[in-house]
Amino acid sequence: MCGIFGVYGSKDAALLTHLGLYALQHRGEESAGIIAYDSKKIRQCQGMGLVNDLFDQKSLKSLRGNVALGHVRYSTTGSSSIENIQPFLAKHKGGHIAIAHNGNLTNALKLRREMEKEGSIFQTTMDSEIIVHLLARSSGRDCKKTTLLATLQRLEGAYSLVMMVDGMLIGARDPYGFRPLCIGRLGQAYVLASETCALDLIHAKYIRDIEPGEIVFIDKDGLRRANLPKKDKRAFCIFEHIYFARPDSSVFEKNVYMIRKQLGRQLAKEAPADCDIVMPIPDSGNSAALGFAEESKIPFEVGMIRNHYVGRTFIQPSQHIRDFKVKVKLNPIREVLKGKRVLIVEDSIVRGTTSRSRVKTLREAGAKEIHMRVSCPPIISPCYYGIDFPTTKELIAPKKTIRQIRDFIGLNSLKYLSLDGMLKAIGSPKREFCTACFSGVYPTKPPKRLSKDILEKEN
Amino acid sequence: MCGIFGVYGSKDAALLTHLGLYALQHRGEESAGIIAYDSKKIRQCQGMGLVNDLFDQKSLKSLRGNVALGHVRYSTTGSSSIENIQPFLAKHKGGHIAIAHNGNLTNALKLRREMEKEGSIFQTTMDSEIIVHLLARSSGRDCKKTTLLATLQRLEGAYSLVMMVDGMLIGARDPYGFRPLCIGRLGQAYVLASETCALDLIHAKYIRDIEPGEIVFIDKDGLRRANLPKKDKRAFCIFEHIYFARPDSSVFEKNVYMIRKQLGRQLAKEAPADCDIVMPIPDSGNSAALGFAEESKIPFEVGMIRNHYVGRTFIQPSQHIRDFKVKVKLNPIREVLKGKRVLIVEDSIVRGTTSRSRVKTLREAGAKEIHMRVSCPPIISPCYYGIDFPTTKELIAPKKTIRQIRDFIGLNSLKYLSLDGMLKAIGSPKREFCTACFSGVYPTKPPKRLSKDILEKEN
Amino acid sequence: MCGIFGVYGSKDAALLTHLGLYALQHRGEESAGIIAYDSKKIRQCQGMGLVNDLFDQKSLKSLRGNVALGHVRYSTTGSSSIENIQPFLAKHKGGHIAIAHNGNLTNALKLRREMEKEGSIFQTTMDSEIIVHLLARSSGRDCKKTTLLATLQRLEGAYSLVMMVDGMLIGARDPYGFRPLCIGRLGQAYVLASETCALDLIHAKYIRDIEPGEIVFIDKDGLRRANLPKKDKRAFCIFEHIYFARPDSSVFEKNVYMIRKQLGRQLAKEAPADCDIVMPIPDSGNSAALGFAEESKIPFEVGMIRNHYVGRTFIQPSQHIRDFKVKVKLNPIREVLKGKRVLIVEDSIVRGTTSRSRVKTLREAGAKEIHMRVSCPPIISPCYYGIDFPTTKELIAPKKTIRQIRDFIGLNSLKYLSLDGMLKAIGSPKREFCTACFSGVYPTKPPKRLSKDILEKEN
Amino acid sequence: MCGIFGVYGSKDAALLTHLGLYALQHRGEESAGIIAYDSKKIRQCQGMGLVNDLFDQKSLKSLRGNVALGHVRYSTTGSSSIENIQPFLAKHKGGHIAIAHNGNLTNALKLRREMEKEGSIFQTTMDSEIIVHLLARSSGRDCKKTTLLATLQRLEGAYSLVMMVDGMLIGARDPYGFRPLCIGRLGQAYVLASETCALDLIHAKYIRDIEPGEIVFIDKDGLRRANLPKKDKRAFCIFEHIYFARPDSSVFEKNVYMIRKQLGRQLAKEAPADCDIVMPIPDSGNSAALGFAEESKIPFEVGMIRNHYVGRTFIQPSQHIRDFKVKVKLNPIREVLKGKRVLIVEDSIVRGTTSRSRVKTLREAGAKEIHMRVSCPPIISPCYYGIDFPTTKELIAPKKTIRQIRDFIGLNSLKYLSLDGMLKAIGSPKREFCTACFSGVYPTKPPKRLSKDILEKEN
Repeated sequence: MCGIFGVYGSKDAALLTHLGLYALQHRGEESAGIIAYDSKKIRQCQGMGLVNDLFDQKSLKSLRGNVALGHVRYSTTGSSSIENIQPFLAKHKGGHIAIAHNGNLTNALKLRREMEKEGSIFQTTMDSEIIVHLLARSSGRDCKKTTLLATLQRLEGAYSLVMMVDGMLIGARDPYGFRPLCIGRLGQAYVLASETCALDLIHAKYIRDIEPGEIVFIDKDGLRRANLPKKDKRAFCIFEHIYFARPDSSVFEKNVYMIRKQLGRQLAKEAPADCDIVMPIPDSGNSAALGFAEESKIPFEVGMIRNHYVGRTFIQPSQHIRDFKVKVKLNPIREVLKGKRVLIVEDSIVRGTTSRSRVKTLREAGAKEIHMRVSCPPIISPCYYGIDFPTTKELIAPKKTIRQIRDFIGLNSLKYLSLDGMLKAIGSPKREFCTACFSGVYPTKPPKRLSKDILEKEN
Repeated sequence: MCGIFGVYGSKDAALLTHLGLYALQHRGEESAGIIAYDSKKIRQCQGMGLVNDLFDQKSLKSLRGNVALGHVRYSTTGSSSIENIQPFLAKHKGGHIAIAHNGNLTNALKLRREMEKEGSIFQTTMDSEIIVHLLARSSGRDCKKTTLLATLQRLEGAYSLVMMVDGMLIGARDPYGFRPLCIGRLGQAYVLASETCALDLIHAKYIRDIEPGEIVFIDKDGLRRANLPKKDKRAFCIFEHIYFARPDSSVFEKNVYMIRKQLGRQLAKEAPADCDIVMPIPDSGNSAALGFAEESKIPFEVGMIRNHYVGRTFIQPSQHIRDFKVKVKLNPIREVLKGKRVLIVEDSIVRGTTSRSRVKTLREAGAKEIHMRVSCPPIISPCYYGIDFPTTKELIAPKKTIRQIRDFIGLNSLKYLSLDGMLKAIGSPKREFCTACFSGVYPTKPPKRLSKDILEKEN
Repeated sequence: MCGIFGVYGSKDAALLTHLGLYALQHRGEESAGIIAYDSKKIRQCQGMGLVNDLFDQKSLKSLRGNVALGHVRYSTTGSSSIENIQPFLAKHKGGHIAIAHNGNLTNALKLRREMEKEGSIFQTTMDSEIIVHLLARSSGRDCKKTTLLATLQRLEGAYSLVMMVDGMLIGARDPYGFRPLCIGRLGQAYVLASETCALDLIHAKYIRDIEPGEIVFIDKDGLRRANLPKKDKRAFCIFEHIYFARPDSSVFEKNVYMIRKQLGRQLAKEAPADCDIVMPIPDSGNSAALGFAEESKIPFEVGMIRNHYVGRTFIQPSQHIRDFKVKVKLNPIREVLKGKRVLIVEDSIVRGTTSRSRVKTLREAGAKEIHMRVSCPPIISPCYYGIDFPTTKELIAPKKTIRQIRDFIGLNSLKYLSLDGMLKAIGSPKREFCTACFSGVYPTKPPKRLSKDILEKEN
Repeated sequence: MCGIFGVYGSKDAALLTHLGLYALQHRGEESAGIIAYDSKKIRQCQGMGLVNDLFDQKSLKSLRGNVALGHVRYSTTGSSSIENIQPFLAKHKGGHIAIAHNGNLTNALKLRREMEKEGSIFQTTMDSEIIVHLLARSSGRDCKKTTLLATLQRLEGAYSLVMMVDGMLIGARDPYGFRPLCIGRLGQAYVLASETCALDLIHAKYIRDIEPGEIVFIDKDGLRRANLPKKDKRAFCIFEHIYFARPDSSVFEKNVYMIRKQLGRQLAKEAPADCDIVMPIPDSGNSAALGFAEESKIPFEVGMIRNHYVGRTFIQPSQHIRDFKVKVKLNPIREVLKGKRVLIVEDSIVRGTTSRSRVKTLREAGAKEIHMRVSCPPIISPCYYGIDFPTTKELIAPKKTIRQIRDFIGLNSLKYLSLDGMLKAIGSPKREFCTACFSGVYPTKPPKRLSKDILEKEN
């Protein structure tokens, strides 16, 4: 996963991009980069780490110009390296192309092999570099509308893009609309962002989402649009609502907090429980737990306190501390839990190991019974469109029955939200959302292997 | 304010101290230090910043020994400097004295002036250095019981201390018991900590609080105790419960989260409101808001989302962003607030300026009415015992009526919890707690001026 | 100017490269990089600054493999940036090409424009990237002999190269042989280096120079060679002997210290002076001054002491210190200079401003007369082959007579070595060396403008 | 060994001190510190490392005020720690005492034990802290003349001091004058410095040395002086001239370079050799080698080139490089050495191990014979006055005959300068200089053990 952001038409372009990336930090904590454009001069600042640590007053001041774009990158095992920091920047025929990409192309390897055969050299293993090469090989000098349309039609899979070509800002979304991307305005300036929370922070006004298959070109003449050929369905990533996006954001035109509360309410209807308290696992389960508590009338309590100072890895003392990793982040409140029948609302279960540790910690703090309700169905299939799910091998749901998972985690009961219940809560027809991770039914032909894995092995 | 921690009898002493300080980080974010003792060798590691950034595997490994103590320090304006990092360490007659102090001596300046007259030189402006000088000037070589008792009897004001004298760990609390300090055990090891949350993290078992006026000596022969002359009352700092301590801690033998919920319930009884939703200001008002919502039956909602990545100061873009400081930390959820009558529960109001910005932000997000309920009485007097309240000049409550404060903050209504209601919720007789900041009635004679201010001017 | 280094066949390849670059540090202080190859894995470490500060035990250990190459880069105004650090590395058809380049191509811009037209994108403004693109566009997959020969034949200007293609180490020198490059052996390993001092440090044995127009391929089958079409003359850079190379190196098969002493002797014959002492400007003029003193029988004295701790720029106090920059580096010894007729031997004069400050400093220290002898002719033309001479505009010799230069610097007398005298001292026929900077006669057609300047403006 | 520096009366006081310390860097590379005084405010900046790396524009700007003092500290094994960085600063009776010390007290431990008995606590193991405690315990508030005289009379051993007491700058030298300290003027400002090279750099004019036993007080009323009781002899450290001071400095009123050349000439007279070339070990033997060459008429050559980029420790490759440490610093020039009878002039031999490695390196480079002449007598006794000589156990001269040393180092011949010859060359009567390290005759009663060692063990 990644977060992307762009600004056209503000003398604070880089400063605003910095704030936008800060608001999108949850979409990628591994690395970040900003590129700014100032009368044909390109300036760039990037690094491994959090937005807050990478940029300072001096570096932001140096990123002059009224066009800028930025990117935050998620840490996936193995591929975290300096050369893969985005936005990707290249020089071409006396100009520049910069690109920030969120999503995953399913034909990346095929495209790359074709171009290598013709003599292209690659610096990184990123999809965004492939897109730049395709653009550079197209005929036109200017990356105008036709060139870009032709290039994007060769791409398969998920992409939300923010690009900068010689001072023009471009936003694009694949025809299925897997990943979100929205347009905002701040005075005369245009803003593009993965989520609306980034607009909120800079007081920009949300205008609309970029539509699936839409490309917007923003320059001194304003915003123009073009469209890729239409698909007969959409494939919004439902996991954005369930887990990934910030609760104060709207994605796919709906507020995430409200959706999550609704998921919690639906869950309470489908899978009620006779308990004394409802508690979330902070902070991801907060909203659904509130919904569950409201619907079930069971009191909502804060059973665990999150430590806000969590940073680097901690050194485990030799004197064994059980479930050390949980405790460093979350401390149970004994007085709340003691002797209680506790219902935990979780947003999702991936491997189950984290839940297991937490449940142990809660039991040690005195909980009498522990029940879990999960606000989405079991995750049974990998994602090829950008969510970093482990391979099937590492997912717990494809390998165990719900009863086995319950025992693995150490629960008195465990229930999941149904696929239909989930869609009902979200209030959308099935064909608008990609639910492949829950159903195994993919909206596009999945690749045999992820190109990322192959390319990284070559590295 | 500060947090203190000590371990005796574990080969992981420094590692455990590191974790203890991490759990106590909320008590002081400015600087931290750890001192460890290993067969007559003292090793020390310290610096400005957060625990997580200051210590790493290498530095912790180097802090060998099975006795250690540590300190986190709060940032008060002007006095934040490297030389004032605690624990304070001194060499004396071939041995070492290390001391970590939480609280504020009211006769510090007088004691210091006396010793300077006799030729003592000072490195810092800290109370803990004064205590070390007093000890060094005492007759005995060993800082045994009598020496220490004599020394502590010369101190006035608030002090919870963790000390290390030639490998012995010592804990002490002033006769009024202003600041908390508790004893835990981890296997054969003893642990001293400001709050129980620090014991929880390392899986140490809470044994009891050190009593007001009690001194405990811990060495290879176990724990012995001594007592300073008794006072006729106690003066536990009520602000620990209201704001300062972590909700998962117990201080003065009561769980903070439960107390805060109770304060919220009492507040709902005393000052009900006809509203659509109850919301906290995350995270400090969470517990009281839950209590208020439960008692009032008004739905509890999360109206603002906290950004967990808050770090350094941000650079405000020239393009004016209203209430920038609020938005960087908290983003309102428009869909929750729009058209609603909102009741905010705050734990306390000091200057009122932060509340004012937040209320503005909520109004801009669409709230129809905004009411505020505060889970303590108005703060009208400065604290001489260690809470960093601004001087009377900067407090809003001594200068304005509640109606004026309401208008300053921009509220539809504002009500505070009563002093009696507060004590009732806490379930303690008045004479157990220091409520000087709410009543102006001090448990000890207050100093004319704070020695800190005088000494820092001299610097 | 730059320094290049490569190793094939040692398990310490990166460590040895690190030492090699350290020995070549005088050829480029701006940035450095090392790339190592280990069974198809490429690892890279680089940065701005000195070799000693960039690499540590941890980074060198991580650069596993028995093939490595490295580069140190000179700081030329404007182009000092992170993306221009060498060696340049690219991925191509599942393999890697790494290249370290010393010299300057005179047809770089033309080649680049051609490839951009065909869709190539560029990351940097470096010549080495152009060479990699040329190679990638060639037909063969393997960068075998024919491909490489064809590619190098398209290059014009000066290049000494160390390359690594999928684990094979390649060295090459342009047909004129502008820049040095030699071969050494360390046990079974092969070593390539700009100067022999890099071989000395690692105890490698000097074998021979790579010949002008020669390419050597080193892999598990040993060393093979190929040759570009011959040119009718050579064009060794005479400035390597006069100023650039280290005195303990041999370049173009002659020891630099001995050559410089010989230049000093020849200078004493051509331009004697009636003085009391001969002194160098440390350290560059040391060797020539010793030669001058020997020939002239005038005592050699150290009139200025060099400060070995020179680092960052110093802050000039407001209280004006005359010739501050000189004094920070060199302090005159009053007792040596007082009342003396001093003869300074300089290796070369570029702008004349530094000499001017030094002469002033010596006069203030009491020198009665100051004479200067320069161990090369006046520099009247820019260099297109890699020496970073300022443009004609900034050189003093094209604009002033020797008498005017003498007065500008503030000397009692000034004399230069003659072109013929210089060649005689070096003991080589004119057609072996490029003397364009002294004569304006270039061995190849010079470009209208340097591509570097054009490309950097575009950036 | 250490270097000390102070300025009174310049608004650039800290900047000038920074430059002064930079010029004195050779006297101590381990740590450095500067303290500045500005209308009762004291500011301090210090750290481990070189002057150039520790201070930058920002830190120097912050050190406001027109009085400043500074210190560079030598790295002696074991005691290199942050708390021992000088100048030492203490607060006392509302004022400040700062002190920078060069030398070694022989009664430090005794004084410290006395004060500890009376209740003083110590932060460091430094002599300077002892002096501050003595001052603080004296009656007067002002550290006026009488107080200071009384305090200094209690000190035994070597001390050159620069102090700052509430804005007054004080310089003092022990009655034997072991360590140098001189006075300069820069406009209206006064400057104190260990060596004159520090005056030169800032264009200050050398006025005179502070005399043995003299104290100077500098404030707004100018310079006043006082004197400790006279001793019947002086004990200038002869090692300053032989090795320690910079050649461009004058210490004890004589230029070091001239003295060293004279030592070389005397050596050539006492111990001639039939050789082809004379060479120094750069850079310490340069001056004596020039003197030897002049007197002996044997040509002076540079046989080894020093690498100016020497920094951190290097990682030795596993592929064994003989005498790696030598080669990293010094590279022999084969063309100079091959087949030659080489005479090396060394300033001194301590352990002999370094010389041994260098001689091996020279032999491998082809030298036919290698002879060594040393410009001082054999070092047979430890120094208690501040030169960091290893204990007798580690010195080579007390344990081996000259013939054995010759064989250990691997020389064809080895000769030392005689004690009388040394004093003759320096042109001073024996009773002016301390020659204890050569003769074992100490000018004052030596301590049984060095207090430093005892105190550090306690730490």
